[in-house]
Amino acid sequence: MPHIQLPEGLPGIRGPFAFRPETAKPLCELAEILLHTPGTLSPADRELIATYVSSENDCYYCQTSHGAIAAHHLGGNEQLVLDVKQNFAGAAVSDKLKALLAIAGKVQRGGKNVLAEDVERARREGATDLEIHDTVLIAAAFCMYNRYVDGLATWGPSDPASYRERAARVARDGYLAIPAEVLTVPAAQ
Amino acid sequence: MPHIQLPEGLPGIRGPFAFRPETAKPLCELAEILLHTPGTLSPADRELIATYVSSENDCYYCQTSHGAIAAHHLGGNEQLVLDVKQNFAGAAVSDKLKALLAIAGKVQRGGKNVLAEDVERARREGATDLEIHDTVLIAAAFCMYNRYVDGLATWGPSDPASYRERAARVARDGYLAIPAEVLTVPAAQ
Repeated sequence: MPHIQLPEGLPGIRGPFAFRPETAKPLCELAEILLHTPGTLSPADRELIATYVSSENDCYYCQTSHGAIAAHHLGGNEQLVLDVKQNFAGAAVSDKLKALLAIAGKVQRGGKNVLAEDVERARREGATDLEIHDTVLIAAAFCMYNRYVDGLATWGPSDPASYRERAARVARDGYLAIPAEVLTVPAAQ
Repeated sequence: MPHIQLPEGLPGIRGPFAFRPETAKPLCELAEILLHTPGTLSPADRELIATYVSSENDCYYCQTSHGAIAAHHLGGNEQLVLDVKQNFAGAAVSDKLKALLAIAGKVQRGGKNVLAEDVERARREGATDLEIHDTVLIAAAFCMYNRYVDGLATWGPSDPASYRERAARVARDGYLAIPAEVLTVPAAQ
């Protein structure tokens, strides 16, 4: 049961979004820019970074929902998502993404863990300053989203099919559609 | 030296803001709503929560800048800010704020640490669901801002006077003024 009274029927972060639409707006705008707006990193790579950090933070809802979005972008390859979560160094992803995931993992444990040599390695694999910046901010942002979801003790469906269905929608429409969507549910306040 | 080439002369989070104005906008909007927009929790209390979490995350720039803003709201009481960072249970703040700081400290270590009894205690001291929600999100958000600032190895001035001067401005104008301000500095990109 959530720690505060949230609108019913909305899993994970969508309950707090409906409870507090003022903060939902910038939180969704940030996710849209970092994960969905076209950039030099593919949406799949960016969702994999978000999924990996959420897994390291042991956030069930975020790692499952963003893992499903990553798998959708990867043509349904759920095994690759699992491989990245369990041991990205041995997963079938690019060396550049491995270097970025290493930076993301250090940010997850605390910003000061990122060393000049981690950034140098990413640069050698072809990462730009903007890609390194966005990796740090995606990892930092999911340290927020994960704590928001678990710190309020929200619930998440256990059925993988519901995440797959929703992933297809988010992969297509992005994150800006979410605030309007949750606001159609009458708030409990 | 920052890990990526940031516009020069901008300390802490303002360098990355100028580097990536697209993400600066929602990040500043979130801070504005959580810390500056009038609410039932005073700006001083909210800045103290942000300062305490930043201190627990060992983020020099964030704990010093938000600590200075908290002290400004408290009529210059820098000692109280220090007391909250070092041992809030013994500080001269309300029992309600102590209960909220306890929740914030648990969020900082990971969302799942927040227990029903922590929330019950805050409620007994008079905290509303909205205040508990905002405490969780302030703590979660500073786990992001702190990692963003330190994960990119930004620099912060060592002179306390510069934080005091700036704190007076932020306490008056809020956080929405920041994006326009940093964008007057030519970006290095």
